[in-house]
Amino acid sequence: KSTKSHDPEGNIGCAHALYDFLAEAGNNELSVKEGETLTITNRSIGGGWIEAQNSRGDVGLVPEDYIECKPPLVALYWTGLPTLHLSSFFRSLTFPLSRLLQASNGNDPWSVWNSDPSGGSNNNWASNPEGTQTGSAASQGHPQAYQGPGADCDEWDDEWDDSTGGYPESESGEGGAMQRGGAHAPSMKISLNKFPGFSKPGPELYLLCKQPAKGKEKLTIYMGEVGPVWSYPETQLDCVVADPKKGSKLYGLKSYIEYQITPNTTNRPVNHRYKHFDWLYERLLDKFGSAIPIPSLPDKQVTGRFEEEFIKMRMERLQGWMTRMCRHPIVSCSDVFQIFLSYKDEKDWKTGKRKAEKDETVGVMIFTTIEPEAADLDPVEVEQKCEQFSRFTKAMDDGVKEILTVGNEHWKRCTGPLPKEYQRIGKAFQNLSSVFNSSGYQGESTLTDAMTAAGKTYEEIAQMVAEQPKKDLHFVMETNNEYKGLLGCFPDTIGVHKAAIEKVKEGDKLVAAGKISTHDKVTMAKRVSTMSYSLQAEMNHFHSNRIYDYNRVMQLYLEEQVKFYETIAAKLRQAHSQFTTM
Amino acid sequence: KSTKSHDPEGNIGCAHALYDFLAEAGNNELSVKEGETLTITNRSIGGGWIEAQNSRGDVGLVPEDYIECKPPLVALYWTGLPTLHLSSFFRSLTFPLSRLLQASNGNDPWSVWNSDPSGGSNNNWASNPEGTQTGSAASQGHPQAYQGPGADCDEWDDEWDDSTGGYPESESGEGGAMQRGGAHAPSMKISLNKFPGFSKPGPELYLLCKQPAKGKEKLTIYMGEVGPVWSYPETQLDCVVADPKKGSKLYGLKSYIEYQITPNTTNRPVNHRYKHFDWLYERLLDKFGSAIPIPSLPDKQVTGRFEEEFIKMRMERLQGWMTRMCRHPIVSCSDVFQIFLSYKDEKDWKTGKRKAEKDETVGVMIFTTIEPEAADLDPVEVEQKCEQFSRFTKAMDDGVKEILTVGNEHWKRCTGPLPKEYQRIGKAFQNLSSVFNSSGYQGESTLTDAMTAAGKTYEEIAQMVAEQPKKDLHFVMETNNEYKGLLGCFPDTIGVHKAAIEKVKEGDKLVAAGKISTHDKVTMAKRVSTMSYSLQAEMNHFHSNRIYDYNRVMQLYLEEQVKFYETIAAKLRQAHSQFTTM
Repeated sequence: KSTKSHDPEGNIGCAHALYDFLAEAGNNELSVKEGETLTITNRSIGGGWIEAQNSRGDVGLVPEDYIECKPPLVALYWTGLPTLHLSSFFRSLTFPLSRLLQASNGNDPWSVWNSDPSGGSNNNWASNPEGTQTGSAASQGHPQAYQGPGADCDEWDDEWDDSTGGYPESESGEGGAMQRGGAHAPSMKISLNKFPGFSKPGPELYLLCKQPAKGKEKLTIYMGEVGPVWSYPETQLDCVVADPKKGSKLYGLKSYIEYQITPNTTNRPVNHRYKHFDWLYERLLDKFGSAIPIPSLPDKQVTGRFEEEFIKMRMERLQGWMTRMCRHPIVSCSDVFQIFLSYKDEKDWKTGKRKAEKDETVGVMIFTTIEPEAADLDPVEVEQKCEQFSRFTKAMDDGVKEILTVGNEHWKRCTGPLPKEYQRIGKAFQNLSSVFNSSGYQGESTLTDAMTAAGKTYEEIAQMVAEQPKKDLHFVMETNNEYKGLLGCFPDTIGVHKAAIEKVKEGDKLVAAGKISTHDKVTMAKRVSTMSYSLQAEMNHFHSNRIYDYNRVMQLYLEEQVKFYETIAAKLRQAHSQFTTM
Repeated sequence: KSTKSHDPEGNIGCAHALYDFLAEAGNNELSVKEGETLTITNRSIGGGWIEAQNSRGDVGLVPEDYIECKPPLVALYWTGLPTLHLSSFFRSLTFPLSRLLQASNGNDPWSVWNSDPSGGSNNNWASNPEGTQTGSAASQGHPQAYQGPGADCDEWDDEWDDSTGGYPESESGEGGAMQRGGAHAPSMKISLNKFPGFSKPGPELYLLCKQPAKGKEKLTIYMGEVGPVWSYPETQLDCVVADPKKGSKLYGLKSYIEYQITPNTTNRPVNHRYKHFDWLYERLLDKFGSAIPIPSLPDKQVTGRFEEEFIKMRMERLQGWMTRMCRHPIVSCSDVFQIFLSYKDEKDWKTGKRKAEKDETVGVMIFTTIEPEAADLDPVEVEQKCEQFSRFTKAMDDGVKEILTVGNEHWKRCTGPLPKEYQRIGKAFQNLSSVFNSSGYQGESTLTDAMTAAGKTYEEIAQMVAEQPKKDLHFVMETNNEYKGLLGCFPDTIGVHKAAIEKVKEGDKLVAAGKISTHDKVTMAKRVSTMSYSLQAEMNHFHSNRIYDYNRVMQLYLEEQVKFYETIAAKLRQAHSQFTTM
């Protein structure tokens, strides 16, 4: 197990891998998975390498560019830094912190801390895995813009949630994988798209494995009305994330938030900290990521300006994430998800955790557990389906980002210039009214009272306008943001399929070259068909959820919009009635 | 009478006076009134003087800076000039024209053509007589800003209305005062405020005149409930300005618009061109200006982008001006106003005109006809009243300008960025809906149809938002703009009173110096009391109209706003109903 280690020179410390790295055999290298927590054991190797130890105790060399180090302790106590353009305490604490570290440690290995692979740390809505700009540059620096994910600080969640003061913990016995500090989605993408050489194991592992592991796991795919579908449980799992409580340990040196999660199955609440969610996410991604898009946790989101608001927002998004996982027939039924939701006691939890971490049916090997109850597909059809889904998810990604962009602009207008304008209109009416009152002319109080009331009505409208986005646009934004995250996982999932298709296409060539047997070729075709069924089942699951979600959010939005405009009309009608008809 | 004269060297031509100029006796100078049309008879005098002839045939020297010359004929035919920022034909024709003349004739006397005394030819809402900035700088160049008076071209109205092609006319026998090309209000103010030396005759003329002219005119002031009031006619005069018709003369070389004015007294329409309104304005200003604020005609307003829109807008404003004049008990009963509204035939009209032009009860002498039916006021009370009105009109002027400023901003937002945003929201919903349609997943047409409908609804809302200001804000703007013009006349009217008060204060000194007799001093006090009654009657008239106008316009505005928001709510409710409740 990893040892807690920290020397005064900063030579040894905690770090995590930014990208996947595959060790070359015999070179004394250490394979690391992106996001994996490492303990740096020797920083003085030179030649761009450092020595690190993983949570299993293996020690080896890793390219230092692949490692992101935790900041030195002192920086966490630094407060009172100048805020750049964010007014809240939270942002002022974290944003300049990373900047400071960058600026003052030019040649220091710590300075990679803030290396944000998605570029532009201030880019709302731009934390999409492909690094695509979503037009949000226009929103930079606007304090009232909708606060999406990808806000200023990668390190925020980790530090704030788990230790508001203190060295990033590395508790032995709790599993080292919890220490990732970086962003999942962006760096994962980087690893797949920009550094294909250090990608996850390709589909060959599954396509060509001699005898698929025969575990007790069995994921059946049926033919439903809409085509291949997962096997859905009879009652849908659901849970409520609630009651965030601040806890502390080490005599108050470290504080954290614990959420209460109550599943509808046991109706018995369990407690989890953010880092437990993060652990769960890692396990699900490892296990199902090749077949099922596992959306990132709502991390790195600095939404609230106050602690309370921040916690509320995070809880809301954790709820959204958990609901989506509960709704997934494969995820929700998995052992790891079940143990997370309904462990009986600490021991039960620890056992479950250890078991989950040892699970070997991960990555592309998940396909070995999938059993479609239908005839094998032709490779041509497999490719067609794959292309279709690829096009659709790309198109929807664009559509969703467009909504986020216009929504963000609308949010800014509704909370910024528009209410200011209504307020000024209101003030102008009231000012003229008070001038009229000073006329010395008798009997105009009916007019001036009515004008004052009309002015006040416009001030009320100003306030309504400013508050409305929280009541309706917020949910449109949250839903689309969630979908953006989800859609950002599809290129990975689809990518595995595309790679498999390419492999199958090479079948004849590989046979001719004597690299695989004819039997292998047939097996590959059969297995890529299984993968296609899996993708289709997943797409059908996605579509049915999408229809439900958009139907719901559009209804809610329009309902609130109707109320909004009706209330304004009623207020104005009231104001109108105060004028006399001459 | 003036002779039509135009020599090829441009030596002789038409011009008009920019400011009042009082000739010094024995210096061969010619007194001119601001706005008066002159014929330049000799441009080669030198020393900053030119020789000019007025419409009565008097010839004399005038400072050349006081004269604005008409442009040479050729420029009027110049079309196809690059537009600067105004898209319409009208604006493109006129705005660059003046610029061109300025640029190409640097040292030419013609280059004074575009000298705009109010500064900033592009300054919406800034044609107020005091030249005060109303914050409209922000609206510069915005094509959709509310188009108030004082738009680009001083020369526009004159040229376009009276001669779309051809030399500015100087018809003999029609009265020379019609040829003014400049702006009344701004240049008048300049003359009074910036060049006090060339002001109108002061109140002394009235205060010290030996025996007030005993005409048949008699303007009685009664004590009403609210204080001194004018004598109101039993039925209020009213008229309808309608049916603008394009006429032409000189075989089509000159075209003009003729409006039909039908008073409620005779119910018989009379026709008038804009320049006849202008003549009427001049007469009313001459006759009543010292006692009654006569608002400027809606001249110099380039509001419509198309001929039709322009004519409609001008007609609307001429109607507003005529309605205000009709409502005034003194103005509406005057001979000159009556003949304008109800002349029987051309001969009747010409006779009436000639008579009006010969009227000598003008300027401060109007006070000789005023007869208050109440005890003389104490000079202290006179001064108090005067100060009170001065304060009120200034405060209201500020209030009105504030409304115009915020209204103009709101206009821009409602016709510019806001509908664009709603349109983009609508498009984003529709785009996502069409992506959904491409999913290949069955049975989602209810959702996509509903989403498309919702998107279209937001596009409809976009259009409603853009069109709404014309339905409600327009009238708020027009009313306040009218009041801005009216309030801009008060400093003049009040100024005459202040000057009179000062004169009375000097009474003892003047008696001591032997300049006036004790009897004169008593007379002055009595007459300043008459002036105060007149001001009070006028203020009470103003107040009662103000209450009526603002009550009406606020009601109209709120009524339309209620309709607007109710329609939006109804549209959204309809859109909402298309989603299925799951």
